Amino acid sequence: MFATALRCRACHHTIPISLQYHCSICNGILEVIYDYESLGKSEVFHSALRGTSPYSGMWRYYPMLPLKDPTNIVSLGEGNTPLLPAPRLGRLLGVPQLFLKNEGANPTASFKDRPSSTGISIAKEFGVKQVIIASSGNAGAATAAYAARAGLPCFVVVPEGTPFSKVAQALSSGARVIFTKGSYSNSYQLAHAAAVSFGWANLSSTFLNPFTVEGDKTIAYEIWEQLRHRVPDWIIIPIGAGPLLVGTLKGYEELKRFGLIKRLPAMVGVQSEAVHPIADAFAANKTIVEEWHGNTKTVASGIADPLIGYPQDGTLTLMAIRSSGGQCLVAPDVATLEMGRKLAQTEGLFIEPTAATGIYGVLSLRKQGYIDSHDLVVVLLTAHGLKMPEAYEDVSFKPPVVNTLEELQVMLSCKHI
Amino acid sequence: MFATALRCRACHHTIPISLQYHCSICNGILEVIYDYESLGKSEVFHSALRGTSPYSGMWRYYPMLPLKDPTNIVSLGEGNTPLLPAPRLGRLLGVPQLFLKNEGANPTASFKDRPSSTGISIAKEFGVKQVIIASSGNAGAATAAYAARAGLPCFVVVPEGTPFSKVAQALSSGARVIFTKGSYSNSYQLAHAAAVSFGWANLSSTFLNPFTVEGDKTIAYEIWEQLRHRVPDWIIIPIGAGPLLVGTLKGYEELKRFGLIKRLPAMVGVQSEAVHPIADAFAANKTIVEEWHGNTKTVASGIADPLIGYPQDGTLTLMAIRSSGGQCLVAPDVATLEMGRKLAQTEGLFIEPTAATGIYGVLSLRKQGYIDSHDLVVVLLTAHGLKMPEAYEDVSFKPPVVNTLEELQVMLSCKHI
Repeated sequence: MFATALRCRACHHTIPISLQYHCSICNGILEVIYDYESLGKSEVFHSALRGTSPYSGMWRYYPMLPLKDPTNIVSLGEGNTPLLPAPRLGRLLGVPQLFLKNEGANPTASFKDRPSSTGISIAKEFGVKQVIIASSGNAGAATAAYAARAGLPCFVVVPEGTPFSKVAQALSSGARVIFTKGSYSNSYQLAHAAAVSFGWANLSSTFLNPFTVEGDKTIAYEIWEQLRHRVPDWIIIPIGAGPLLVGTLKGYEELKRFGLIKRLPAMVGVQSEAVHPIADAFAANKTIVEEWHGNTKTVASGIADPLIGYPQDGTLTLMAIRSSGGQCLVAPDVATLEMGRKLAQTEGLFIEPTAATGIYGVLSLRKQGYIDSHDLVVVLLTAHGLKMPEAYEDVSFKPPVVNTLEELQVMLSCKHI
Repeated sequence: MFATALRCRACHHTIPISLQYHCSICNGILEVIYDYESLGKSEVFHSALRGTSPYSGMWRYYPMLPLKDPTNIVSLGEGNTPLLPAPRLGRLLGVPQLFLKNEGANPTASFKDRPSSTGISIAKEFGVKQVIIASSGNAGAATAAYAARAGLPCFVVVPEGTPFSKVAQALSSGARVIFTKGSYSNSYQLAHAAAVSFGWANLSSTFLNPFTVEGDKTIAYEIWEQLRHRVPDWIIIPIGAGPLLVGTLKGYEELKRFGLIKRLPAMVGVQSEAVHPIADAFAANKTIVEEWHGNTKTVASGIADPLIGYPQDGTLTLMAIRSSGGQCLVAPDVATLEMGRKLAQTEGLFIEPTAATGIYGVLSLRKQGYIDSHDLVVVLLTAHGLKMPEAYEDVSFKPPVVNTLEELQVMLSCKHI
């Protein structure tokens, strides 16, 4: 293993690789650091880049991940998702070189399988006996699935009243669902307290668990391969707290450090119109992101994260966006659904509204002139449309009744009137 | 291209490659035939087997498919789905060497992306201007998506009263949904009549369209690669009319013809307790499958095909099963859901009830002694659980409310009483 330590992103205090959630000195966010020099010279590293790794999916890149023993890999075949050119949608948006990374093709149908596979593999390596996560969304579904695959019991903590449909995937994997009164913050606090007190693995999808974000990193390596080493000018990512954006950028930073690319892509974070603490700080040129208090209702529920209790996660993401020369913007719900439909109609990909905010991001940045018509743009489609098909429901759904060929012919001719 | 003709499976009448749906002499089922000698000697064939094809996903095997010009490929990144060892479920079922081919990882979340990608690519190559399909299920969703990707208008014909949720994916891709009065048979007849009269491509998921089943074939090549050339003793497949089973077997027959394997796997078809015309004919040792009249309500709706209007499709599948030394059985709904839950709980994979009939198939054949504990068994998990999560709904869903660490501790200690 080439991971050498956990280091605080704030005060740089360094501790051995272990299941810690915060810097013990300053309470800062921990990050996995590596011996990049040895990694870059290693045979396993070059084997991974050549595509001759003994592992498949995202675990092809296992030398770049913080797992000591590959027999601890807990995999459902995540990663290796298609990167699709989207010429028809691209023309519509004025960006002919548009590529879509379809993370909905992961086993639980969202990108969360990457951090969950990493986090559960690490939990197994540490001999952890129980997993917990606060999430009624894609992270909960993914964590429950990987915990089941590993044979680890899993608690999923969600606000009281969360409907069955939001936890159907997690429940099916045998996870025990617990309600907490009040908002998501209470679920989050309980999960964290239990993990710290009982030595459980906490996979709540923020920067708490320092290992999960490493799984997100593999997206960068895959895109690098799929674009045959070309670097996108822009990578557009829907963000709540933002580990996916920070992880993807870390992958590109590693590629640059290894001399495999010469520059970084500009990272774009897209937030929802209901909850946008990072976009606000970005627009106001602030250096700190603040908690978001107020309504969080939006079709892009996967990124409706008010950061209550962990605003520093937003600050970290804000810094990552700025350091890459990127942008951060807000997607209105109506335009988001419109973009989800346009994508399906032009390219056949059906995505969750949260993911569709990324398509809106392309439209908006192109209109504002940030994205040029010659730019190479990649959007991370974070989850499948089947996660939330009702979001696209057309209340006026009333197909014509056509019983014979003659009736069909009449209908067709009418169409042209 | 190495496909040379369409040949009638009944009377062997041979016609040039074209968009035909039946033998013009005897109305039999048409099949694509190939010049296997030239194919086997070709560089593109060996390149595909070496994994150095210029195309990705299932189109790596494009020399084995009936497309003339690869620029006509209409792809969403289908195929190349994970084959997962399932040791925990395998131990439970008494089959330690159990492997699961996760077709839910395809772009529209079912195996239907393989035949649809093939059928739409062929439609594009033939210059067809319109696509039609009778299906309110996974085939309709897949065909609409690939038609959108190709820029081809698509009609989806379904029985009147089909709810929005069953056609949400197809509608999102911009397909026009048409209702027909009466049963699915009427939808099927209208789609066929329109295709023949107007020169449209009909992708209804039977053996009508001779090209779609060729897409299913790629599953065999992938499993062959993933098992490093070992041949499964059994391949278990949920079947309605059965093109997936026939297509998979054809792939294995080709592998044998090329000398890449020495024997064929035994093919097992699993039908639902509501509709099982093929299983009945198999059990009664008949040579002909008959139409199924009666109730078709089952949780395994994806295989509830009564074959009305095309019982010969069932006969073809029956013959394929017999020729491979396989089995055909019926899965009860309650046991099917139980198996779907067991799979999710032991391995983390969430699948549609239709797919779970395959897991039941393993259980049943192991109990009956057909499958031996040393056998290598592959189950095709035909679609993702998100296609129909409500099937697993637990009406007694009532999670405990736990607000503090102390309450959680009490709950945990109670658990052990």
